[in-house]
Amino acid sequence: MSSFTISQALDMHLHLRDGDMLNLVGPLTSKTFSGALVMPNLVPPITTKDALLSYKQRIKEACKDDDFEPYVTLFFQNNYSYEFLEDIKDEIIAIKLYPAGITTNSETGVASMDVEVLRPTLESMSKLGIPLCIHGETNGFVMDREKEFMPIYESIASAFPDLKIIMEHITTKDAIELLDKYDNLYATVTLHHLLITLDDVAGGMLQPHLFCKPIAKRPEDRSALLNAALKAHPKLMFGSDSAPHPKHKKECCGCAAGVFTAPIALQVLTQLFNDNNCLENLNKFISLNAQKIYGIKPPKKDIKLIQKEFIVPSSYEYKNEQVVPMYAGETLTWSIEE
Amino acid sequence: MSSFTISQALDMHLHLRDGDMLNLVGPLTSKTFSGALVMPNLVPPITTKDALLSYKQRIKEACKDDDFEPYVTLFFQNNYSYEFLEDIKDEIIAIKLYPAGITTNSETGVASMDVEVLRPTLESMSKLGIPLCIHGETNGFVMDREKEFMPIYESIASAFPDLKIIMEHITTKDAIELLDKYDNLYATVTLHHLLITLDDVAGGMLQPHLFCKPIAKRPEDRSALLNAALKAHPKLMFGSDSAPHPKHKKECCGCAAGVFTAPIALQVLTQLFNDNNCLENLNKFISLNAQKIYGIKPPKKDIKLIQKEFIVPSSYEYKNEQVVPMYAGETLTWSIEE
Repeated sequence: MSSFTISQALDMHLHLRDGDMLNLVGPLTSKTFSGALVMPNLVPPITTKDALLSYKQRIKEACKDDDFEPYVTLFFQNNYSYEFLEDIKDEIIAIKLYPAGITTNSETGVASMDVEVLRPTLESMSKLGIPLCIHGETNGFVMDREKEFMPIYESIASAFPDLKIIMEHITTKDAIELLDKYDNLYATVTLHHLLITLDDVAGGMLQPHLFCKPIAKRPEDRSALLNAALKAHPKLMFGSDSAPHPKHKKECCGCAAGVFTAPIALQVLTQLFNDNNCLENLNKFISLNAQKIYGIKPPKKDIKLIQKEFIVPSSYEYKNEQVVPMYAGETLTWSIEE
Repeated sequence: MSSFTISQALDMHLHLRDGDMLNLVGPLTSKTFSGALVMPNLVPPITTKDALLSYKQRIKEACKDDDFEPYVTLFFQNNYSYEFLEDIKDEIIAIKLYPAGITTNSETGVASMDVEVLRPTLESMSKLGIPLCIHGETNGFVMDREKEFMPIYESIASAFPDLKIIMEHITTKDAIELLDKYDNLYATVTLHHLLITLDDVAGGMLQPHLFCKPIAKRPEDRSALLNAALKAHPKLMFGSDSAPHPKHKKECCGCAAGVFTAPIALQVLTQLFNDNNCLENLNKFISLNAQKIYGIKPPKKDIKLIQKEFIVPSSYEYKNEQVVPMYAGETLTWSIEE
């Protein structure tokens, strides 16, 4: 039986939520990942040191795993002082910027992406070496939002050449092409954007569990993302954007955006890289690239994947809620050795 | 109070379903429309004279309205003989062609859109003067399916210059542009495609009640459709493609395609044409164009619309099922005088 070992897997874009949901989904990541960059878009968002440290503590308690490191982030605001950022610097891995209202719990994001408006905080971050993670979408037509954001990435990247900027959950070939134009631009890509296009969401029957933001794009976009991931482009990191919602908020009128992939990410990535004869690049894509880009040393953790069928649970349960993962009820060809 | 009278409204693309659903939705159309071209994609589809006449009878019984004419259609098949078509000609208004599997209940549609494969039936139809309605989508990427179908429309239109071809529920500016290239090409357009883009379906939260096939396209497509409708382009007819599904098949995992607009179509069209100062064109768009194109004389029926608020029901009920209309629970500015 074929096997493959993933060392120190890192999920560089993860939603762990809070409360009961955190207690459910935290262990589903910490069991197999060494660390994860955790998004700050709670309600209210993480904007203070107290909120940050307390959330980190709740994550650690929920994950019950000493060899899992939650790399926590702050929710970008225009009014952060240099002193505040200097004080919080060692507690965070990055600051996440959301344009206001662009996705789940982003209502208090920035109203303007004008560099001059953002300059005070970005200047402090640049001086202090704090990376900037960006949800890069305009409020234009849904298929164009990321492409329309490219000039904004360019303006920030050229105005702050020493600031590390991570284009989060990229979905287009435009973003892949931009990656090589600026030394200080990096990106994460999700599992689902390597696998699906808008066809999978709305080409047959409508599939709410594959509805996410940014929305899955065109076949040529997926190809560009997949090619970059398979060759482990050194500026590209795995970030699942695993975003659990209760089932009743997905299968309804006004379905919430987000695909829940945490419990299947390693199995499906191994399958995908193996099917494309690129397994030798998987550890770079899922760990080494991020270690270099962020300068982190995650806890040691080796996970052995074996070529053995794994039937994905139809849902994960907590209290009276259910969370439905991607590929619910389907059979994967790789599983994690227990 | 402003008012406007619509005379002999025609819905030239309508799904009335069968059984309990027909009994619910039939009267919601026949109350205000003089006639409707009824789609044949039942399970099994309408392919025989017996099935056709029996369905027409069930529609008449459900609609309980002597001044409503159901213009019934046959489901296109390659093996229809000239004699069969000659015999059924006076009972049908058109034959509807579906590429296999392209939408709801189209599994037994044609496997090939090659003109030579379709030639025998199309030649008979052309000689007998039976119009051809087409669901024009390829099985390509969901946003490209209609555009990719344009060469197929062109090949049929040029091979059969005497055959009236109706491009059903067009959604793109490509289709609008094609309309003027061939004398024998016509089109229907729905209410919802004049109003929404993919943004309304998947740009915010996912809206299953706006999910339809063909899927709503880009803003520039909607503009092209709306401009043509507002000026009552003589080759363009109103066809709602009102397609009711039980609520539980819309708000679920694997939501069915279709927007239910029958009960609100006249009110919203009046509002739309009035807001754009084009009310004088509405009777052409909703009746006169179709009368000329199909050569029909629908029953007399004048419907008076008044500028008075109408709250759209949250659903229409039958037995234990509910059907949710477009704009459920919202307030329209025009209503039908009772």
